[in-house]
Amino acid sequence: MNRKERVVIKNIFEMPTVAFDEELNELVIIDQTRLPNETVFLHIHTVKETYDAIRSLAVRGAPAIGVAAAVGIYAACERFKTDKAERFAKEFHEAKEVLASSRPTAVNLFWALDRMEGVINANPDLSVAKLKMLLHDEALKILNEDVAVCRKLGGYGLTLIKDGDGILTHCNAGQLAAVRYGTALSPMHVGAEQGRKFKVYCDETRPLLQGSRLSAFEMVSAGLETTVLCDNMAASLMKKGLINAVFTGCDRVAANGDAANKIGTMGVAILARHFNIPFYIFAPSSTIDMKCKSGENITIEYRNPDEVSELWFEKRMVPEGVNIFNPSFDVTDASMITAFVTEYGIIRPPYPTAFEKIFKPEGKV
Amino acid sequence: MNRKERVVIKNIFEMPTVAFDEELNELVIIDQTRLPNETVFLHIHTVKETYDAIRSLAVRGAPAIGVAAAVGIYAACERFKTDKAERFAKEFHEAKEVLASSRPTAVNLFWALDRMEGVINANPDLSVAKLKMLLHDEALKILNEDVAVCRKLGGYGLTLIKDGDGILTHCNAGQLAAVRYGTALSPMHVGAEQGRKFKVYCDETRPLLQGSRLSAFEMVSAGLETTVLCDNMAASLMKKGLINAVFTGCDRVAANGDAANKIGTMGVAILARHFNIPFYIFAPSSTIDMKCKSGENITIEYRNPDEVSELWFEKRMVPEGVNIFNPSFDVTDASMITAFVTEYGIIRPPYPTAFEKIFKPEGKV
Repeated sequence: MNRKERVVIKNIFEMPTVAFDEELNELVIIDQTRLPNETVFLHIHTVKETYDAIRSLAVRGAPAIGVAAAVGIYAACERFKTDKAERFAKEFHEAKEVLASSRPTAVNLFWALDRMEGVINANPDLSVAKLKMLLHDEALKILNEDVAVCRKLGGYGLTLIKDGDGILTHCNAGQLAAVRYGTALSPMHVGAEQGRKFKVYCDETRPLLQGSRLSAFEMVSAGLETTVLCDNMAASLMKKGLINAVFTGCDRVAANGDAANKIGTMGVAILARHFNIPFYIFAPSSTIDMKCKSGENITIEYRNPDEVSELWFEKRMVPEGVNIFNPSFDVTDASMITAFVTEYGIIRPPYPTAFEKIFKPEGKV
Repeated sequence: MNRKERVVIKNIFEMPTVAFDEELNELVIIDQTRLPNETVFLHIHTVKETYDAIRSLAVRGAPAIGVAAAVGIYAACERFKTDKAERFAKEFHEAKEVLASSRPTAVNLFWALDRMEGVINANPDLSVAKLKMLLHDEALKILNEDVAVCRKLGGYGLTLIKDGDGILTHCNAGQLAAVRYGTALSPMHVGAEQGRKFKVYCDETRPLLQGSRLSAFEMVSAGLETTVLCDNMAASLMKKGLINAVFTGCDRVAANGDAANKIGTMGVAILARHFNIPFYIFAPSSTIDMKCKSGENITIEYRNPDEVSELWFEKRMVPEGVNIFNPSFDVTDASMITAFVTEYGIIRPPYPTAFEKIFKPEGKV
């Protein structure tokens, strides 16, 4: 390892975070574990490769995981050897089980896999060739919908801030967490396109530093004034009056409005409430899990202790014999969330009623 | 650099963090920047060496800085060549100015240097040889008082917790922040000697990881169940009901009870209040600055951005063009502090009145 690796920013905005190579029928993702020092693309088509990419966080962020799972399972099943529909369906279900076990918290993973599986379940009489065509179209649709939804979130989010505002964000809910634009960072991307100016403050987001590596990378690339801070410095910024709003993404929202997101989000929400700063969560409707009653029903993933005890897996900083507490997510109580920004608009409490309106056939709030 | 350096825990409790080698007239400190991977002692006697040791955090923690400054300035002035008292005093004042500029926030630095200078100011007619003897005695007194005061803090702190309690601490206010025992960790050290059992949770404390490297090292060495967490995980522990009390040290307490301590302390205090967990600050009276009216009058040190942007100065994790916010301290509002633990006992609000009692000649609360 070089003692100091130089950071080279390339323009990542020319390519989506998750892409569908339709010529090769492959999933293409930016390897996010190597950002910002290297921009490397992974071309993937087996179930195992897709599982590993999600598990290792090469692709991460709830919307991006959903799209990657959809395109990945299509790329895999396109290569299934059988021409018997029943056998094909069986192999598909097995592949789905594997991918669904890659990470437990983000609901978009299950949502996207369910949509793909729905294609097979709804068409028991079609040939394998026809099913493959329909699965191809569904994966592409999931991908394109994600771009459209994120763009909408950006537009709605922009109505919450004005030029010169300081916006604090935690983890990465940007383009790198979706296909394009992202969720919580979409207002800044869309705003930057329009020449608007914001000061973006990125919590570094221990242990894996998605804030410093990914959000700061996106925001400085978009030409915005960007500042990185350690997670424990957010309260100081708020006390100084530098933060006008907090924008974060989420991995799963329960029917009552409790929201699971990257570990540390709950603490930021409590601090924001203390300092009377509005706290907004950006949630495509695919992230809202109406089957999940409250935050207590959300499974929280615990990850490898080495993420905490070894700095970027290279230098051990925790003595032996010491336990490590390393939950990957926490759940922010609905009462701490000023509003959710969705593709249907800005949703304010009471959340249960507002969410139900979205999911009724007539839709929209 | 080895890809993985092994952590070897040695028993640091046989030797104080800051020592006075009276044979060689030298200041001896554990180089804390190399803990927990290496236990290295620095032998120091020039003003420049003492300044560098404090500035670089080889010695850190408000009480330890005070003692190191006292012993360090004695070791330096013992070697002044002049035998003219006036010249000696002038050189002493210059040395004091240099050491006082090493770090701005911890008041113990100024308090200890003022005590040493007071010896010279009070004895304008003494010979240089006599002054050196008095300065020797004063430095030794400051060191020994620190041990006695910390031991007392431990005893008072023990009355606030019971066996099996979970105690969250931030940064390091242990033996490594003092001479022995420490302040906020003293109850656990003293309790461990008595066979008592606590579960100690250490915020890793970014950017320099004094929690994982130093507090966890002390607590696991003392035989206590010790867990390290990233700073942004504290709210999750509190929500789970695992934390019965928060114990931290401080670098300077204002007359109104506002307390400056390691960055992140204010956020932990706000979270503790949210979850109804008592939040105690351990403050030897040398840390209470009655000349400082409120937290607004405390100078906050900003440190090298590389502390944040480069993981332990080895691997850059923040893209170029991004600002870094790196205050070393924050100020916790007096209203968030359940009580102060001092060598005079446990002090509860209203703080201004309670502090005044300590500093009145009749002393004691």
